[in-house]
Amino acid sequence: MIALGATLPSVELWENKPNNKVEFPDGKIIIVGVPGAFTPPCSSQVPGYVVAAEDFAAKGVVGIYIVAVNDVFVTNAWKKNLGFENYENVHFVSDWNGEFTKALGAEFDASGLLGPVRSKRYALVAENKKVQKIYVEGVVTDVDVSSAQNVLEEL
Amino acid sequence: MIALGATLPSVELWENKPNNKVEFPDGKIIIVGVPGAFTPPCSSQVPGYVVAAEDFAAKGVVGIYIVAVNDVFVTNAWKKNLGFENYENVHFVSDWNGEFTKALGAEFDASGLLGPVRSKRYALVAENKKVQKIYVEGVVTDVDVSSAQNVLEEL
Repeated sequence: MIALGATLPSVELWENKPNNKVEFPDGKIIIVGVPGAFTPPCSSQVPGYVVAAEDFAAKGVVGIYIVAVNDVFVTNAWKKNLGFENYENVHFVSDWNGEFTKALGAEFDASGLLGPVRSKRYALVAENKKVQKIYVEGVVTDVDVSSAQNVLEEL
Repeated sequence: MIALGATLPSVELWENKPNNKVEFPDGKIIIVGVPGAFTPPCSSQVPGYVVAAEDFAAKGVVGIYIVAVNDVFVTNAWKKNLGFENYENVHFVSDWNGEFTKALGAEFDASGLLGPVRSKRYALVAENKKVQKIYVEGVVTDVDVSSAQNVLEEL
């Protein structure tokens, strides 16, 4: 994984629709990498961040970014399907070709289930685009260190 | 594309959930290849097949298979999202690694939007697993020759 203190990769990411680029803001943000939209573990982990969005905001978090190696039609549908369409501070982000995930060193081969390039499950705290904390699950189906509750407690 | 008269590729495909294998039946079937679950053109084309499922059945079609290079969590969510969960004769099929699509010669590079391996838009009629008719859109966003209405009229 990317080193603590390193700058977030500058890779084009989209949300909501094609060519709608994601610009990470200055200030504190959370990036959550997930193996796949609509998969059961991810669909149980991600709502924790949405439900706690105000608690994160109270601790100075200006944006939460859920990043999956899925196309933007899928990430957008997933956000709607979870009922989070109106949560503007929680961004469902498409890393369609995995370039962001690979630049973080978070890719893994999910061939046989999802596809050859997917994201490990991780949570990352960055401030002014510098990586401050990283939590990577040892087993991608686990939701433990990368849970909203854990990340929030350690903020 | 695969030749008329050729046998359908024998590639593992899933529907609804991982490892739930699709077995094409004998008899007449329709296979519809689409570039991407949840994309607007596909989400407008596919319902035509579902709405006309009884008309296809009346012409001897025993199954309709919508095939996308998406993982099975996504194809399953797409079927539910379209409201077609209870249409058992319309199968939403995951060709997660594109092997079926490549074996048909229907792959195209959708890098920059969806991903490097996706399916052209086509409809194919097969009987006893032999290809009888093929309709491939020249432009993948078009829904013309591969529309349910056109395929039904020519059955």
